[in-house]
Amino acid sequence: MIGPISSSPVSPSPISFAERGTRARQVFGHLEAPQDALVLFDDQFIFYYCGFAFFPTERPTALIITAQGERILFVPRLEREHAQQTGEAERVVDYPEFPGEVHPADQLAALLGELGLARASLGVDYDGYPPVMGYDGPTLSEVLSGATISRVSRALDHQMALKSEAEVTLIRESARWGAQAHRLLQSYTRAGESETEVEARASKEATAEMIAALGPGYRGQNRWMSGAVALYRGQIGVNSALPHAMTSGATFQMGDTLVTGAGAAVWGYISELERTMFVGEASAEQRTFFQHMLNLQDIAFAALKPGATCASVDQAVRAYFERQQLWDHWRHHVGHSLGQRIHESPFLDIGDTRPLEVGMVLSVEPGLYVPGLGGFRHSDTILITPGGMELLTDYPRDLGSLIVP
Amino acid sequence: MIGPISSSPVSPSPISFAERGTRARQVFGHLEAPQDALVLFDDQFIFYYCGFAFFPTERPTALIITAQGERILFVPRLEREHAQQTGEAERVVDYPEFPGEVHPADQLAALLGELGLARASLGVDYDGYPPVMGYDGPTLSEVLSGATISRVSRALDHQMALKSEAEVTLIRESARWGAQAHRLLQSYTRAGESETEVEARASKEATAEMIAALGPGYRGQNRWMSGAVALYRGQIGVNSALPHAMTSGATFQMGDTLVTGAGAAVWGYISELERTMFVGEASAEQRTFFQHMLNLQDIAFAALKPGATCASVDQAVRAYFERQQLWDHWRHHVGHSLGQRIHESPFLDIGDTRPLEVGMVLSVEPGLYVPGLGGFRHSDTILITPGGMELLTDYPRDLGSLIVP
Repeated sequence: MIGPISSSPVSPSPISFAERGTRARQVFGHLEAPQDALVLFDDQFIFYYCGFAFFPTERPTALIITAQGERILFVPRLEREHAQQTGEAERVVDYPEFPGEVHPADQLAALLGELGLARASLGVDYDGYPPVMGYDGPTLSEVLSGATISRVSRALDHQMALKSEAEVTLIRESARWGAQAHRLLQSYTRAGESETEVEARASKEATAEMIAALGPGYRGQNRWMSGAVALYRGQIGVNSALPHAMTSGATFQMGDTLVTGAGAAVWGYISELERTMFVGEASAEQRTFFQHMLNLQDIAFAALKPGATCASVDQAVRAYFERQQLWDHWRHHVGHSLGQRIHESPFLDIGDTRPLEVGMVLSVEPGLYVPGLGGFRHSDTILITPGGMELLTDYPRDLGSLIVP
Repeated sequence: MIGPISSSPVSPSPISFAERGTRARQVFGHLEAPQDALVLFDDQFIFYYCGFAFFPTERPTALIITAQGERILFVPRLEREHAQQTGEAERVVDYPEFPGEVHPADQLAALLGELGLARASLGVDYDGYPPVMGYDGPTLSEVLSGATISRVSRALDHQMALKSEAEVTLIRESARWGAQAHRLLQSYTRAGESETEVEARASKEATAEMIAALGPGYRGQNRWMSGAVALYRGQIGVNSALPHAMTSGATFQMGDTLVTGAGAAVWGYISELERTMFVGEASAEQRTFFQHMLNLQDIAFAALKPGATCASVDQAVRAYFERQQLWDHWRHHVGHSLGQRIHESPFLDIGDTRPLEVGMVLSVEPGLYVPGLGGFRHSDTILITPGGMELLTDYPRDLGSLIVP
């Protein structure tokens, strides 16, 4: 029986208005080339700079940030009050509808004209609203041909990768509830039970407990996770050899290798916890691959420190694959940044030459995959610290703790 | 107490291999200008043409369709076996990783070169893999500068909008389970109960019942829905006046206006059912707006028939807003297509001049929003038939049936 977890020493607070305002002013310092303003279409960038959490559809939404840090939200009519009540923009401008009588892209161009930006240098995440659910429209370059449009999403990704104390507090809180959901998942899993039932029960109970603990001010505000969740996503038995298997409604069998996933949405922020478990017992072969996987993760942990490149961590892990002749079982790089998005850049990948910096939060999840046997992967969320790294997820890693009856 | 629903007269079958193969051969007939091949990056188009259901990440995935209808899936290494086992492509080609040592966009360009398409006319959904979770890369035009790249997503949307009998069968099945989840949601809702608890209980029970009824072959395979769901998404009391409110963990109060949403994922297909309900009683003002909303939906139903333009349906509904002086309460157009995506094109919108055709499936959901009081919207899913339209959702619409104790 899993008891409730102890209360947080300090109740986490959402990101302050001041912090989002500072982000919007400081973003210009992250750009490679000066821009007169930014025009952002991605819902995650919009949430990051002005706190407006919304459900992106075929109706374009954009955030304009001027060089003075003024934020203007451009939304469809149906989101006007929602944007006014929850967004931290200095101004909300709405258009009637998409497709509508005048294409929203033309109305956005007109708004940029009114702001004196028709011939400006504009940094964008994408050149126009991206194709979502049947949206169809011109690029920003096409409707604002006098402006100079430059993609700056790599710079925005870098700003987003450097987490503040408030952001780390929320990711830590997410990790606590992810671990609680995982404890419940583990406790309900046993041979003969159904994946779907076990996932639903663990996630529902952990979510209820989290909502009660975090109080009526709690909001999830995340596109990928809702509440506290723990699941298998179909990574059960031989299917766990598929790193991104989809849910299949399996029943647990004795001897199955299981790969889990857990996290929680906490005011827009998430964490990632994954464990390899076994039903009933682990064979000699399962134990061997499990130990290799632990070794790989230990190698990655040791390589994570400020100043090291992302590539160097992947190289250290790859060297073990090489030494141990495990290439047949390699499927992916070591990990990715995360926080708001379930995956963010930079990546712990041989091709990513960016250096690690204090405040970055990444998943560490080298894996081994053995067709016919299963997948072997733990994932932990870590914070880059001045001295190296700190684990934000806290859950047993050893084989003895991960065998379910 | 809501009893189990009766078994389907015919168990729905997934879309056949032959049907997806036919789609891939026939897509060229939908294009405005001839193309030598298609290169598609969108996960929904990829599923539509080859049945590969996957979780899109920063690792690019593409489907090439040659003029002969041959399908070549381009996937990251970690998806190789998954694509081979579940995709219906004639060939699967994989690249190691993103970012990796060689950018996947360059490897895709090399593959297109091997296929003799380096200087071809290529129809694309987007010009290059779209920005997902920190992906960063060149456009297809940039890496394949000898080719002529044209956006053809509007033509693909049109093919996708014309549902086959097999697709309509799955949407109908989705609607049955959405209605069952909704019946449970309605039965558990009462003053003092928590939104989150009621949603979780109704969705969990309906999902379990659906999985038991559809058998071990059941797959959800939908990006927007998992299992059978019924929820409020925060549209409770005065918050229901925000058409796209986000979940807020509310407690139901006497007199609340509620707006629901329900559906189910059935082999990739979904449906949409929404109802306006009241807790305990409806005031005179609530009754007035509820009746206007029913009138608006009836006007839309009467206008839906093959040959009528999408715009004409919106115009008919707008004329009622005009006659009744209800413009202050207008927020959005009448509806959207759906099937695989939760929203698809064409749209029942004054700006969409495309004609309705037999086999299109659309939501019909004109709404009224009254700040301080609530939102008033029913949504039903309909099929365009030779004689007009047919309701695919089946749930009471009248006020008497929609008051919860």
